[in-house]
Amino acid sequence: MKKDVTIAGAGLVGSLLSIYLARRGYTVNIFERRPDMRKEAISAGRSINLALSDRGLLALEKVGLADAIRTISIPMHGRFIHNVDGSTAFQPYGKQGQYINSVSRGTLNARLMDLAEKQGVKIHFNSKLESIDWDSMTTYYGMPDDQMQSITSSLFFGADGAFSAARLEHQLKHDKFNYQQYYIDCGYKELTIPPAEGGGFAMEKNALHIWPRKDYMLIALPNIDHTFTCTLFFPFDGEKSFAKLDTTEKVDQFFKENFADVIPLMPELNEEFFRNPTSSLVTVKCYPWIRGDRFSLIGDAAHAIVPFFGQGMNCGFEDCRILDELIDQYNEDWSQILENFQQIRKPDADAIADLAIGNFTEMRERTADPQFLLQKKIEAYLHEKYPDEWIPAYSQVTFSPHIRYSEALRRGLQQEAIMAELMTMPYVDTIYHTSEIEHWILSKLKDRH
Amino acid sequence: MKKDVTIAGAGLVGSLLSIYLARRGYTVNIFERRPDMRKEAISAGRSINLALSDRGLLALEKVGLADAIRTISIPMHGRFIHNVDGSTAFQPYGKQGQYINSVSRGTLNARLMDLAEKQGVKIHFNSKLESIDWDSMTTYYGMPDDQMQSITSSLFFGADGAFSAARLEHQLKHDKFNYQQYYIDCGYKELTIPPAEGGGFAMEKNALHIWPRKDYMLIALPNIDHTFTCTLFFPFDGEKSFAKLDTTEKVDQFFKENFADVIPLMPELNEEFFRNPTSSLVTVKCYPWIRGDRFSLIGDAAHAIVPFFGQGMNCGFEDCRILDELIDQYNEDWSQILENFQQIRKPDADAIADLAIGNFTEMRERTADPQFLLQKKIEAYLHEKYPDEWIPAYSQVTFSPHIRYSEALRRGLQQEAIMAELMTMPYVDTIYHTSEIEHWILSKLKDRH
Repeated sequence: MKKDVTIAGAGLVGSLLSIYLARRGYTVNIFERRPDMRKEAISAGRSINLALSDRGLLALEKVGLADAIRTISIPMHGRFIHNVDGSTAFQPYGKQGQYINSVSRGTLNARLMDLAEKQGVKIHFNSKLESIDWDSMTTYYGMPDDQMQSITSSLFFGADGAFSAARLEHQLKHDKFNYQQYYIDCGYKELTIPPAEGGGFAMEKNALHIWPRKDYMLIALPNIDHTFTCTLFFPFDGEKSFAKLDTTEKVDQFFKENFADVIPLMPELNEEFFRNPTSSLVTVKCYPWIRGDRFSLIGDAAHAIVPFFGQGMNCGFEDCRILDELIDQYNEDWSQILENFQQIRKPDADAIADLAIGNFTEMRERTADPQFLLQKKIEAYLHEKYPDEWIPAYSQVTFSPHIRYSEALRRGLQQEAIMAELMTMPYVDTIYHTSEIEHWILSKLKDRH
Repeated sequence: MKKDVTIAGAGLVGSLLSIYLARRGYTVNIFERRPDMRKEAISAGRSINLALSDRGLLALEKVGLADAIRTISIPMHGRFIHNVDGSTAFQPYGKQGQYINSVSRGTLNARLMDLAEKQGVKIHFNSKLESIDWDSMTTYYGMPDDQMQSITSSLFFGADGAFSAARLEHQLKHDKFNYQQYYIDCGYKELTIPPAEGGGFAMEKNALHIWPRKDYMLIALPNIDHTFTCTLFFPFDGEKSFAKLDTTEKVDQFFKENFADVIPLMPELNEEFFRNPTSSLVTVKCYPWIRGDRFSLIGDAAHAIVPFFGQGMNCGFEDCRILDELIDQYNEDWSQILENFQQIRKPDADAIADLAIGNFTEMRERTADPQFLLQKKIEAYLHEKYPDEWIPAYSQVTFSPHIRYSEALRRGLQQEAIMAELMTMPYVDTIYHTSEIEHWILSKLKDRH
């Protein structure tokens, strides 16, 4: 007999999960804290655009949405680096033809909700999860008029994001729940670059722009309306920090000194800077994710990560795909499905969390370093010549959806150690494609397998 | 003007804190979830006896309680090791005359409450912290009759233990709160060794008994009524685990194989094993502990640790002493006091948390190893001869209350590295007191300063 399923959260992951389950014939109800974003504008506070890459696309493909989403995305083929002296550099993300996709969170979420409803999923908006009766698996929701509603189902998913109410209920009533939430010292603020005069993009459109400044950075992603959404990642406190930039003069001065090329592109810098919120960035790790055959956390609710690898949504979508495969593999035995889901996904979620923290350092600090760009060039060369032996960590994560995150982390650390040794060699920039060096690299790789 | 203070929790730390503050003329109210333990027997679930050592005694001395508590404590001069083959060994904790004190949690807590009330502290029992209004600093408490009471005060302390309700309120309403709770794979169960026939102690009284068995262990601490409280630290799951010992036959068999010398001393082993709860062991780390000049977590609420270094209570008492010193140092400027309190105590709390996890391995695994006992003997020799240069980590933590935990951790790691090198030398057992080796050790110590 098919299970009836309740999901907390109609965000990206909750909506996609509901589609996967509804297609199998499950009855699915989603309860969403916010109003229907397709009818009401919802205030900001979450990032406006996201980088959709192959893991996310693979999961969307399975529900027939990948092509539709591609048409509303903008390909980004690499990092476009803006140095402080005004010079620029381009660093491809992968091989020729490989790219990530800038897509609007709101548009993508609306499409997923539309498809979910088409599949028979019922989405209840303005319904905030208040409590869970674990014995009867009844969940209770508060509504704007102070009314409560409840639903009893045989299977419940918490897909309600980094600050999951489902996880909190789980935590409070679960003996031996391991939990960690960790905030980095930087916050972020979104700013906008409008279209250029004449209506086109004000900068190179098919790239993710980065202004790396060591302790902080600005990035920009293109939107299909020809704007760029910029994000300033910046310390909350300290000498150079959000706390210090408390007047329009100071903001102007700071941007003049550090992002001079951006100023002419941002006519509303000061209005936006003081109007838009400063948001924080959290990593959440917890365990267990599940209870028997009846409850699981999924997506950010189980494993919130920082955005620097562009994998938060992709990882959550991959959760849905893996879960779907396990439903087949264990023939709808949900006790087996959920236990295997957390056993498989927990190490991968931990790995991408750590990779994402590491990529912050790479983006804000190392991309400004010519030695690092040389290293990336050498790695790209190796990848081109030995596509199976040497896959850069970024490519494994972004373009190889069948390599597990935990495997990408392991291999990435191994490659990083080899490159660290290589980069100390004299004349490395000229000798790296000699057969001696290539042989040395390949033997190193084998040593450590 | 003196502040009025509210404390959540009348446990060991909340009670001692209230005495420190009341002595300074502060008005203090404590709200305690449980009934008055001095009037009603409270069911178990927390350890029955504790190891009070010099940090705790120093804090008690300042309120004139140390001598009174010493009279109801039993000195333990070292570890009494019970090997699986029936052989035993004794390993002193420190130098001649140094010892830790086995004391009843209940008796100690009752004495602290008595003294608090004598100092004018009002303790409200059966009052469970429900919520905090952070703007007005009003705290709300639920009572057994479903009535609520509230109190507004200028300063509020959460001294309500590892599962602190105050911390949860703080966490839920604090942007950028770093939090970690981590359970070890072992749980614990308390068992009793009654007095011997004739009424005396059934084993050596002035020692902490350990039955080290690698993945698990049994320990026993003496009580003034001539009983021992034993604690089995044992995996929850796995081949040898609480989950597997589900019949009296299996318990008997397990004890026969692993703790044969204990069986004749525990006539009620099976009754107790199935009657007493299996409890879990958590480490909690969080930050920040405070809000401005008006709120702080303290004791286990700020930094719960596992019990293997016998420092949970001692660390909480030290919190109170350090806070008291800061009140003088910053002349009752609570903004300064609280900020410095967390700056000083956070690294020390983190250090003792890590030391406590490490000591579990030492107790259950290394104390059974003759090489380890030799190492401890060499360290004791060095400590005797060079009392300022070489203080074993255990002694720094236990008998040197003016060495910070973080410093003890740092020095302990340094000494451990030196000892690891020394123990590989041939004939180390005969050469360790030669002047060459001593010189080598002292120079190593200096190298790393």
